[in-house]
Amino acid sequence: MLKSLSTVSSGRLADGREIFWFDTDRSGDLGDSSSGGGSWRDETDRRRLPPTATTSERRWDPLLREWVTVASHRQTRTFLPADDECPLCPSTPERLTEIPGGPYEVVVFENRFPSFSTRATIPDDGVVLDPSLYVRAEGHGRCEVIVFSDDHSATFSTLSPERVRLVIEAWVARTEALNAMPEAEQVFCFENRGTEIGVTLSHPHGQIYAYPVITSRTQVMLESARRHQLTTGRNLFADVLASERSSARRVVTSNDHWTAFVPAAARWPFEIHLYPHRHLPDLPATSQEERDSLGQIYVELLRRLDGVYGIEMPYIAAWHQAPARSDRELAYLHLELFSIMRAPGKVKALAGSESGMGMFINDIAPERAADMLRSARP
Amino acid sequence: MLKSLSTVSSGRLADGREIFWFDTDRSGDLGDSSSGGGSWRDETDRRRLPPTATTSERRWDPLLREWVTVASHRQTRTFLPADDECPLCPSTPERLTEIPGGPYEVVVFENRFPSFSTRATIPDDGVVLDPSLYVRAEGHGRCEVIVFSDDHSATFSTLSPERVRLVIEAWVARTEALNAMPEAEQVFCFENRGTEIGVTLSHPHGQIYAYPVITSRTQVMLESARRHQLTTGRNLFADVLASERSSARRVVTSNDHWTAFVPAAARWPFEIHLYPHRHLPDLPATSQEERDSLGQIYVELLRRLDGVYGIEMPYIAAWHQAPARSDRELAYLHLELFSIMRAPGKVKALAGSESGMGMFINDIAPERAADMLRSARP
Repeated sequence: MLKSLSTVSSGRLADGREIFWFDTDRSGDLGDSSSGGGSWRDETDRRRLPPTATTSERRWDPLLREWVTVASHRQTRTFLPADDECPLCPSTPERLTEIPGGPYEVVVFENRFPSFSTRATIPDDGVVLDPSLYVRAEGHGRCEVIVFSDDHSATFSTLSPERVRLVIEAWVARTEALNAMPEAEQVFCFENRGTEIGVTLSHPHGQIYAYPVITSRTQVMLESARRHQLTTGRNLFADVLASERSSARRVVTSNDHWTAFVPAAARWPFEIHLYPHRHLPDLPATSQEERDSLGQIYVELLRRLDGVYGIEMPYIAAWHQAPARSDRELAYLHLELFSIMRAPGKVKALAGSESGMGMFINDIAPERAADMLRSARP
Repeated sequence: MLKSLSTVSSGRLADGREIFWFDTDRSGDLGDSSSGGGSWRDETDRRRLPPTATTSERRWDPLLREWVTVASHRQTRTFLPADDECPLCPSTPERLTEIPGGPYEVVVFENRFPSFSTRATIPDDGVVLDPSLYVRAEGHGRCEVIVFSDDHSATFSTLSPERVRLVIEAWVARTEALNAMPEAEQVFCFENRGTEIGVTLSHPHGQIYAYPVITSRTQVMLESARRHQLTTGRNLFADVLASERSSARRVVTSNDHWTAFVPAAARWPFEIHLYPHRHLPDLPATSQEERDSLGQIYVELLRRLDGVYGIEMPYIAAWHQAPARSDRELAYLHLELFSIMRAPGKVKALAGSESGMGMFINDIAPERAADMLRSARP
């Protein structure tokens, strides 16, 4: 009974990287969406590109007990190119970009300057780390770019509902595909928006990482959930959601399937967590109905964020999904959307207390942020 | 046999906040430095200031199991004032600043917009957090400003050796005093430098926080040290230092008492950890000789950092000291000095991977950063 919403075409860029086109399927009901609608894009990358050389490694920090990635080849990556040199715009006969062919809807391709790659190698630098303290391993995994529109000046919040829905299908499809990679332990779909948070390309795009390890933040959350399960028999994330829905004090908006709230211990001036009402491990587990209502509430949240001060707010939108193969019942799909902007022109920088000690100091009370977000015109 | 290096005078600002002047003692050998040389400053704050109202609270985040501070009164704090309105310059008959009296050497006073205060109260906002998940407590503790010079345009790296030594004495004295406060669990001396990391006053100054809890980062490190102690019988920090000194690959500089190195799993483009050779809990435990050689190597490190690109680098200098009353044998005094600048004009912002997932991606290999810091003229 599911309707296919997208047609996926795949190809290879000149240096061998994979690329996928997600197009709205206008051919009607094609049955199960996973079968796709057949490959109908057949674009050729006519550039000559040297093969990508990815030197990326992860190192174990024995003091903070987490992995740190060193990707030294990224230092030369493209940095704020002029608008007419944007590598994410469609190719034209005069200028070939990362995306072969003409107009497109949603495109996903492997990052040319990835932090993680199945082809990553440790640099041949003779560095030997003391094995009694450190581990050094290839930065395996994968980094993909997801382009939301061929319109260079679009933003996620101005995409059509149909396009947003297509982005969600792309997140779902790529999460499924990457979770199946032996190198991937956790798939992370996210968008960084705004130069204030280090975005180096202004064309509307997000990223999808397949990490070779479960990230430290997820590990801490899963451990919290494990303890809560042991002591209460209940799921921690579900309890947090129920508590927020019951008090409603920090709820920004909700619909039949999703509730968005400012967390009680928000770290950022404007921080919104969006939970599905059903306990689901990840985006692929959502129903078509949940995806439809996700598209609507997601865009509403972005518009409310911009509406708080009437400016384009810098933000990070981070999808927390279950690890590929472990703790999938403990995890709970949710989005963490936050801005570092505490007032127009004033950014909350992470200074000594946050970066040095992990102690966040938030100038805006979560309840006040929720009030402001509720009052903002979506 | 110890020489008194400083004379401390104390007073109160118009709104009751404490202020301390640290002055070089020129009267010769006065015996134990802790006895001080007597109070010889007697300045009066002639301003009329309303009493400070500090609404600050800490909230327990059950997902990440750490405290988050909400200090909503800070949103109105002084933000990048014009040079002739600097609140840290000496008072003149025409303009009264935070520091009464004329020229000074080093001054410490309670922050007017503190994140933590012994007088902090929870705002009377009727917010009730679900007690099965959250804890809400006053943001007790203390935030002090330490001003390194009365010269508005000075920087730490250009201070005289004598002045640097006086700053160290002030850190020692304030750490001792704050560790003795019943509200304080951990004392944190740090400096944020540069607008890129959110510094709101350009006058050379640092900060000293007395946290009401042991910060999450310190807790993780102490837990790592505890496990290492159990399995090896040795101190983890001492092993890290020994390993770096033995390989020497990432050592930036060292002297008889201190070694500075880029950690093997550095998170930041330029990150330097400075350890004393003796296993000490905190700055008050250092000997006079260790303080003398600290002053020299600390300034050398700041100059090397500026020398890498020949620009004033933004940085965070964070002193990791033992908690006030626990794990004092496990902890190991050290400085973490790091810059977010990866190249001139290019700042490493914390984007999705770092802020969302806790996975740091560093573009500059630690060994290369060490080479660059070693080559930079101090």
